[in-house]
Amino acid sequence: MFVTPQSMHFADSLPLQSGASLRDYSLSFETYGRLNADRSNAVLICHALNASHHVAGVYAGEDKSEGWWDNMIGPGKALDTEQFFVIGVNNLGSCFGSTGPMHANPDTGRVYGADFPVMTVEDWVNAQARLLDVLGIQTLAAVMGGSLGGMQALSWTLQYPSRVRHAVVVASAPNLTAENIAFNEVARRAIVTDPDFHGGHFYQYGVVPKRGLRIARMIGHITYLSDDVMNEKFGRQLREGIDLRYSTQDVEFQIESYLRHQGDKFAEYFDANTYLLITRALDYFDPARSYGGDLSQALARASCKFLLVSFSTDWRFAPKRSREIVKALLDNRRDVSYAEIDAPHGHDAFLLDDPRYLGVVRAYFDTVAGEVASASVGAQHR
Amino acid sequence: MFVTPQSMHFADSLPLQSGASLRDYSLSFETYGRLNADRSNAVLICHALNASHHVAGVYAGEDKSEGWWDNMIGPGKALDTEQFFVIGVNNLGSCFGSTGPMHANPDTGRVYGADFPVMTVEDWVNAQARLLDVLGIQTLAAVMGGSLGGMQALSWTLQYPSRVRHAVVVASAPNLTAENIAFNEVARRAIVTDPDFHGGHFYQYGVVPKRGLRIARMIGHITYLSDDVMNEKFGRQLREGIDLRYSTQDVEFQIESYLRHQGDKFAEYFDANTYLLITRALDYFDPARSYGGDLSQALARASCKFLLVSFSTDWRFAPKRSREIVKALLDNRRDVSYAEIDAPHGHDAFLLDDPRYLGVVRAYFDTVAGEVASASVGAQHR
Repeated sequence: MFVTPQSMHFADSLPLQSGASLRDYSLSFETYGRLNADRSNAVLICHALNASHHVAGVYAGEDKSEGWWDNMIGPGKALDTEQFFVIGVNNLGSCFGSTGPMHANPDTGRVYGADFPVMTVEDWVNAQARLLDVLGIQTLAAVMGGSLGGMQALSWTLQYPSRVRHAVVVASAPNLTAENIAFNEVARRAIVTDPDFHGGHFYQYGVVPKRGLRIARMIGHITYLSDDVMNEKFGRQLREGIDLRYSTQDVEFQIESYLRHQGDKFAEYFDANTYLLITRALDYFDPARSYGGDLSQALARASCKFLLVSFSTDWRFAPKRSREIVKALLDNRRDVSYAEIDAPHGHDAFLLDDPRYLGVVRAYFDTVAGEVASASVGAQHR
Repeated sequence: MFVTPQSMHFADSLPLQSGASLRDYSLSFETYGRLNADRSNAVLICHALNASHHVAGVYAGEDKSEGWWDNMIGPGKALDTEQFFVIGVNNLGSCFGSTGPMHANPDTGRVYGADFPVMTVEDWVNAQARLLDVLGIQTLAAVMGGSLGGMQALSWTLQYPSRVRHAVVVASAPNLTAENIAFNEVARRAIVTDPDFHGGHFYQYGVVPKRGLRIARMIGHITYLSDDVMNEKFGRQLREGIDLRYSTQDVEFQIESYLRHQGDKFAEYFDANTYLLITRALDYFDPARSYGGDLSQALARASCKFLLVSFSTDWRFAPKRSREIVKALLDNRRDVSYAEIDAPHGHDAFLLDDPRYLGVVRAYFDTVAGEVASASVGAQHR
């Protein structure tokens, strides 16, 4: 499936939760499959930390350019683009095409840098809704996301309850724990205290705070994997066969080599200000906050049907966090399916090929497709 | 209990596991209680990452100078200094008095810095044994330590089986997992890539790699606490009451404030090269390595009695790691007591006042004291 990224410009100012606003912004997006006649088969995919609008398919002429959820979404796949019109949107503040910190502030003509306004999950959802308005899509057959993307899917059901029929929330949580925030904060401090960060205006110095980005990514990778899978993949294997080198600075164990490699790769392409913005959006998300912490009250506004999926070894967004959402929805007598997949891969599992996981999602979307088809038939006869 | 630190100089070269050796070194140490006539009541305490020889008591004229295990050790305490002669030793490579990276290399006259030789748990135990030789202590009533200190206690039973009657190994592990090594490696990278590190020779530049040390300590603190206790102590509490500030760089949540404070404090007093050395000693410890990973074979040399203690919410050195040691000792029909304490505080619990924990240690040392007393009576009658 060859795909082409698109961009949509918005001239109207977007009011943000912080009180600030963003004007003259663009959203990068992609679509897969075809919108049906009554525009009822659209599925919006929300992305997590370092992903983008490039969800599925490949770019012509670019090897290894598969979208980040290409194992999930495409013709005949669990989310079947022969049945659904799937939309991927790059969030504001990201570094993959939509307006972000490396673009010029139209008010000053200078690159935003650290002055790019703080974005929240709710702000992203509002921006996504405006894109759907322009695309002529009033109601989504489903909104779907994993991790931070799952938070956006959940928020859709609260901000625009009448515009969502189904929400698929994978490996997510109703908010971050203190430990989650702590990991984000250490990563941010590593970036912000890198001398090359220059208070977030490093672009004009022609440098990138790569030291900080590397540390941030290494911390991230530890939290994405499970202890079990790390032991299985790396254990205490030495890089150099069986001989110890006795060095504090050289690589000695394979796990060190893996983490350094991941850090180096990330620092080459990811924007430091984007990292700060996205981790902050994670920290802030907390729909129960306005309800004194009562998640059941907070989710009362949701009216769609839900599929929640969690993974047994995910210690970043553990199954118990998904169960909190399930319980709050059941308290409101909502229609909820919940699958807890026994998988060894930790948080990363939501991006991987687990047949039970993909099977659950496929079965759910088969039902959604059935609803879409019968509603379309109904519409034709009306 | 007022105490006074002492120092012992060693002119003989200490051969190290790496093949290097250390000459003209000193060990800082303290002792509490009195050595009995037949020198049979000595207990050696081994320290973990950022602790020292100052295990118990206070320094005259210094408020808040309690030793790091003062809640455990002292007159009438769980390890009773009215019964035992307790010795705390600062390990080589540390920054609290014993010879370390900030001292001059006698071969060159220059400060060691990053050239200080890599130390292992086994090297530390050898140095401790030499100190005991000079103090005239052939056999320890017990060796005791928590975390990395527990690894040293375990190693004592393998390196000098005939010199140890009891080993008390608290919140420890037979080796680090890949995840443990990963956290150490991220902390080390943060230090080593701090521009103020200067390849480990920062002393001569009059700077300290504080950015790196702060990050290292923040990561450490996350792993010392449990998710539960972090949620209980900090949760999602904001620093500034109820209003969000919407900032990526300012402190927003209390947990951020706590971590930054811990990082700042640590960077003021801890040595960067010592941090590298001590985390590497943790990485390397693996007595089963020479036995193809068979811990039961590795522990066959141990002949003393054991008390092992672990804490239910410790995810750094989880109870299952202590159970591996227990199983390996039982495979060798050794005398092992094991207590798994249900405590919410994570790895930090080994330093805290938990009555069940302190009760278990007290009961164990009561038995040891009984053995010491009856052996002494026997000696008098011989």
